[in-house]
Amino acid sequence: MVIMGIDPGTAITGYGAIEVNGENFIARDFGCIRTHADQTLYMRLVKIYDELINIMKTNRPDCVVVEEIFFNKNSRTAMAVGHARGVVILAAAHLNIPIVEYTPLQVKQALVGYGRAHKSQVQKMVKILLNLHEIPKPDDVADALGLAICHAHHKSFNDFVKGLK
Amino acid sequence: MVIMGIDPGTAITGYGAIEVNGENFIARDFGCIRTHADQTLYMRLVKIYDELINIMKTNRPDCVVVEEIFFNKNSRTAMAVGHARGVVILAAAHLNIPIVEYTPLQVKQALVGYGRAHKSQVQKMVKILLNLHEIPKPDDVADALGLAICHAHHKSFNDFVKGLK
Repeated sequence: MVIMGIDPGTAITGYGAIEVNGENFIARDFGCIRTHADQTLYMRLVKIYDELINIMKTNRPDCVVVEEIFFNKNSRTAMAVGHARGVVILAAAHLNIPIVEYTPLQVKQALVGYGRAHKSQVQKMVKILLNLHEIPKPDDVADALGLAICHAHHKSFNDFVKGLK
Repeated sequence: MVIMGIDPGTAITGYGAIEVNGENFIARDFGCIRTHADQTLYMRLVKIYDELINIMKTNRPDCVVVEEIFFNKNSRTAMAVGHARGVVILAAAHLNIPIVEYTPLQVKQALVGYGRAHKSQVQKMVKILLNLHEIPKPDDVADALGLAICHAHHKSFNDFVKGLK
């Protein structure tokens, strides 16, 4: 079972694929797609889509996990995230990969045990749970891996596995 | 020369293709793609993408025109528009169709002659300029046609035509 978390953004889109064998998680592939501010939105979205398609074809995730977005950000940020998020959803759909969503609260609860945990605690848990030498950088990569682990931990993961049998 | 305006939204995406022959505009095709609130975002974006690809393949526009978004909307609306807008941009990119943007002010100036014109005045001008019997409904369709006419009127249209020769 491979789960891929994705943290979309027009400048940096983090991704992290983990392999789940029972209670063991192995980091299979992680990194980020970067685009430049001097590129048009058109070029940036095409790059994100094309690279995501390649990454998903290589890792063949059984599902993709994205963050359920909070709306306390300003509308300019929300629009930019929306552009990238639409592209992520479409890329997964074009490869027939289901998408699940978790709130930041659910990610913190799944990884650290309580919802008010600091972002840095979540990142440390990503490092520990995946036996990595250091916390993956930039933050978008650690966040993407955190989403994947959250889904593996979450009750709905069991339902998902059952559903596949 | 065919110009297609698109007004993206996750619930309703309006589109309008016009044919430009010198100073004559002919409405070639217009309408909207509707999705239902009970569909997942995943299904809605896939539907918008698939239908847009078909509509663009049928009309073969030389360029696609979208509105340059203002950010005075709330962040939830901005995110939703962003999702749909990302999909529109990607669909155009996948068919190698360039995209141009205009602000609402530019559309009003191009169609009515001044930037503080009411939306209903823009819609009436769409009807008149395209020799339609009535104003296209819903508003998203009239807005999409307005964007296409704006581009045809705009100085950059001449540059665009020159660029093609």
